[in-house]
Amino acid sequence: MELIVYLAGQIHDDWRDQVKAKAKEKNLPLTFVGPQTEHDLSDDIGENILGEQPGKFYKDDAASAVNNLRTQVLLEKSDVVIALFGEKYKQWNTAMDASAAITMNKPTIIVRPEELIHPLKELSNKANITVETVDQALEVLAYIYK
Amino acid sequence: MELIVYLAGQIHDDWRDQVKAKAKEKNLPLTFVGPQTEHDLSDDIGENILGEQPGKFYKDDAASAVNNLRTQVLLEKSDVVIALFGEKYKQWNTAMDASAAITMNKPTIIVRPEELIHPLKELSNKANITVETVDQALEVLAYIYK
Amino acid sequence: MELIVYLAGQIHDDWRDQVKAKAKEKNLPLTFVGPQTEHDLSDDIGENILGEQPGKFYKDDAASAVNNLRTQVLLEKSDVVIALFGEKYKQWNTAMDASAAITMNKPTIIVRPEELIHPLKELSNKANITVETVDQALEVLAYIYK
Amino acid sequence: MELIVYLAGQIHDDWRDQVKAKAKEKNLPLTFVGPQTEHDLSDDIGENILGEQPGKFYKDDAASAVNNLRTQVLLEKSDVVIALFGEKYKQWNTAMDASAAITMNKPTIIVRPEELIHPLKELSNKANITVETVDQALEVLAYIYK
Amino acid sequence: MELIVYLAGQIHDDWRDQVKAKAKEKNLPLTFVGPQTEHDLSDDIGENILGEQPGKFYKDDAASAVNNLRTQVLLEKSDVVIALFGEKYKQWNTAMDASAAITMNKPTIIVRPEELIHPLKELSNKANITVETVDQALEVLAYIYK
Amino acid sequence: MELIVYLAGQIHDDWRDQVKAKAKEKNLPLTFVGPQTEHDLSDDIGENILGEQPGKFYKDDAASAVNNLRTQVLLEKSDVVIALFGEKYKQWNTAMDASAAITMNKPTIIVRPEELIHPLKELSNKANITVETVDQALEVLAYIYK
Amino acid sequence: MELIVYLAGQIHDDWRDQVKAKAKEKNLPLTFVGPQTEHDLSDDIGENILGEQPGKFYKDDAASAVNNLRTQVLLEKSDVVIALFGEKYKQWNTAMDASAAITMNKPTIIVRPEELIHPLKELSNKANITVETVDQALEVLAYIYK
Amino acid sequence: MELIVYLAGQIHDDWRDQVKAKAKEKNLPLTFVGPQTEHDLSDDIGENILGEQPGKFYKDDAASAVNNLRTQVLLEKSDVVIALFGEKYKQWNTAMDASAAITMNKPTIIVRPEELIHPLKELSNKANITVETVDQALEVLAYIYK
Repeated sequence: MELIVYLAGQIHDDWRDQVKAKAKEKNLPLTFVGPQTEHDLSDDIGENILGEQPGKFYKDDAASAVNNLRTQVLLEKSDVVIALFGEKYKQWNTAMDASAAITMNKPTIIVRPEELIHPLKELSNKANITVETVDQALEVLAYIYK
Repeated sequence: MELIVYLAGQIHDDWRDQVKAKAKEKNLPLTFVGPQTEHDLSDDIGENILGEQPGKFYKDDAASAVNNLRTQVLLEKSDVVIALFGEKYKQWNTAMDASAAITMNKPTIIVRPEELIHPLKELSNKANITVETVDQALEVLAYIYK
Repeated sequence: MELIVYLAGQIHDDWRDQVKAKAKEKNLPLTFVGPQTEHDLSDDIGENILGEQPGKFYKDDAASAVNNLRTQVLLEKSDVVIALFGEKYKQWNTAMDASAAITMNKPTIIVRPEELIHPLKELSNKANITVETVDQALEVLAYIYK
Repeated sequence: MELIVYLAGQIHDDWRDQVKAKAKEKNLPLTFVGPQTEHDLSDDIGENILGEQPGKFYKDDAASAVNNLRTQVLLEKSDVVIALFGEKYKQWNTAMDASAAITMNKPTIIVRPEELIHPLKELSNKANITVETVDQALEVLAYIYK
Repeated sequence: MELIVYLAGQIHDDWRDQVKAKAKEKNLPLTFVGPQTEHDLSDDIGENILGEQPGKFYKDDAASAVNNLRTQVLLEKSDVVIALFGEKYKQWNTAMDASAAITMNKPTIIVRPEELIHPLKELSNKANITVETVDQALEVLAYIYK
Repeated sequence: MELIVYLAGQIHDDWRDQVKAKAKEKNLPLTFVGPQTEHDLSDDIGENILGEQPGKFYKDDAASAVNNLRTQVLLEKSDVVIALFGEKYKQWNTAMDASAAITMNKPTIIVRPEELIHPLKELSNKANITVETVDQALEVLAYIYK
Repeated sequence: MELIVYLAGQIHDDWRDQVKAKAKEKNLPLTFVGPQTEHDLSDDIGENILGEQPGKFYKDDAASAVNNLRTQVLLEKSDVVIALFGEKYKQWNTAMDASAAITMNKPTIIVRPEELIHPLKELSNKANITVETVDQALEVLAYIYK
Repeated sequence: MELIVYLAGQIHDDWRDQVKAKAKEKNLPLTFVGPQTEHDLSDDIGENILGEQPGKFYKDDAASAVNNLRTQVLLEKSDVVIALFGEKYKQWNTAMDASAAITMNKPTIIVRPEELIHPLKELSNKANITVETVDQALEVLAYIYK
């Protein structure tokens, strides 16, 4: 049984590639999807498509319209969501995607370092499970196939 | 027509009282609900009810279970949601509540300062409207009655 | 049993007042809601609240955000929808509201002149019933109480 | 990941063929569906199946019953919707399909010329994104695969 | 706790008045709603509102549009449904209303004479309970208040 | 695009085989499902599995539990429903299946002879379209592929 | 804001009266509903209404049909669910009601003694919170009003 | 037509292997899924992934978080549910899974020995059918293909 996994979280390093590599090592039949990970493209996609906007707010709103359409398509297709939080960045998109997934009854795994226990406590409690590393998140997914 | 408004956001100052006072001035038939605003109580409610927990994570998880039940009851009863973001705190609960509300098709107004345009751009784009002050949020609600 | 009726349609004449007066004459326990009928206010509400926008598109998008929030709140509260089409104006909002209402399983009555049979045929067929005058629409509602 | 795209809009020229050709050029794994594009067939299908009807209204109602069944089947199967508006025709079906899609949480792209900003402002605001050309709409879809 | 009860079934005798009288005797806080019980009005309401139709099928279709709108409004408001089957008439409306109610998760009681066990067996099995008299149906409702 | 079609209706003649043969002639990529068509098996399946029951009602209830499970599985998988009514039999199962399908937003075609216009008028009005022959129903389905 | 609370659990002692008394002491605006607590009536209600059944299974099935209708009506009306587990009885109804409530997105509190941690662990984890006494459950509800 | 069947129930013997073997004998195109059947792994999986927990309750809660995620993924994918009850163990998970499945409109078969008629009567009445052996459950599934 193949499953589709949405990887919510920051797009500033290659954590998704690590997840994919580890899933391959474990031979898990998982397809991973997620937000645009080329950061500049993610910021510029609105103006790339619609042309120059009259200011920062309008540029950002145009980009986020395209980003949100992408997420809506891919999240709807997903069977499970992994949402990674780290110590940098605001990460409100991660919280937004995790909360949308939970509200849509998508099983959701949160990954966050120990330092973030307190500010994430309500979201952690709503998610199915909270772990500290992507390895642990993959162990949770591997358990579905055991 | 009376409406119930959930006020999501930080609980470190009295912004909800300001909202309520302004709604009263405008004679808007609104009932406001929201999270527990006594910060210590919000952090301690789990241990208050369940007794001492074996560590920080467990204390926080117990508190958030009670906080989440409260929010689930009150959000379900609400007709509109106002979610306030500011420059302090992680505010992942605010993002979580706003995203849950949007996914449940609750009309949602985001209030955030100009400085937060970029990190909130996707959530702003998903919400019905984003404004910069609670006065503006109340003007949006007042418009329903005009 | 009181019912709430959403009156979708153009806001350029006083047809909603006529509907309300006729419902009162018939002593029907109906509460009517609908879009903002002050046309200038409906066009300007975005800039009224958010301040001047950098162009026509942005002014319109800001106004429509507020108008859509209003409609979403009031349509959700409604038990029945009357959607009036006439020979003037594009009336895509009317089609949008009627289609949203039908998709939400709200019983929907379309009012349109004979001249519009052909371009409205698919929407008419999806609605519960199509009539030619608001008097007929009110007769349909009166029938619920007979 | 293959996606199904419903192409809502007028059926008087070959814009859908252009969309399909461009998607093929870009090697996007998209399947396009949409309403009946043979205009006469779309108007006559009711009488073709049910026999002659007693007048224009009845002929149109019969045709739209078949057209609506087709749309309901194909829209339900779709992952994304593109709704094209132009300067000719009433295009209430396009508004109806776009609004139904949005209400069903189908990600929706509106394509419309600059001249139609004002009358489409509420629908544009409810859709995920509004662009001016089908090329732009395809760039939005291409972004899902980047 | 007041409950609204939809009384589905034939409209050729006064069984609904009996149900209401018995509920009153038992002091049950129930409000009863149901289809139009004036048979001629139910058949003629389409032409009454829309004017003469070009034949029997069209007259019936017009009437049923109004009847269905009424049922859709009232069924949506109901907490419980009683569906009465007897030995006369086709009673497909009764089966339609009971099946719609069950699919909408409305608790549903079927009343039918012993002779109809076999042809109603699948619908009986889907309903919450099947009884033989309206007295028994009211005992079921009375049990909610015990 | 392959579609699954549920064929609701009586099980006393081979009308489903005719539908399948005609769909094959037209090369329509349709898979047909439906209720158990071996009439005795349909009546006896409860006792076949559960053993002898203490009377007619209990035998019928046991059989209908198995029949309803089958229908629930197959109807959920279906994209379109054809419901055939004829002049013989009570056919409450057909009305039940059609009404359940419509309430589940499954596009539904009713096939009935002219004689049944009046007693089926409300169900016909709720369905997408009503025709008089299975050939016409297949023409409706063929239209999806044109 | 008044809330309705469904009290799921065994019906062999007066724990519901204790809950109601304590809620009154605390002046909480709660209305409590729940299953039939007269045990004999709960077992006999099927035969009371339908007459003698041909054996234990049939008697029980008849009673449970009436009990389930009651629960379905009252659970649908409820805003919160408290499910009490103790050391005696099978209590599958309690697990059934709690699981149905959770699946319907009703906030749910489980009350169980320490001895039952292990066998209830999955249900506890799905519920909003698990406590050991009804006093604690009421403290959770009281927190909504603080 | 392939179907996915979730096998809810105790994990202390090999009843699932028997079900699979019998389905294979009958050549039924069924895929079976279910909870983790290695009992120790099921109890320890929380600590295996998250590390040692501060006590029995916390160990169990961690394990159940992983078990519940697995069940949520697999139940969502399933077309039918078989829930087996026996005379040993509390089996609240079985009741929880069966009730969740029924609430999600998954067709559900309960298997239980005669001795458990009384304590399971409400759950049996809500399920599609209750049988006494897994052979009977498979006969029910085989009937879908006849």
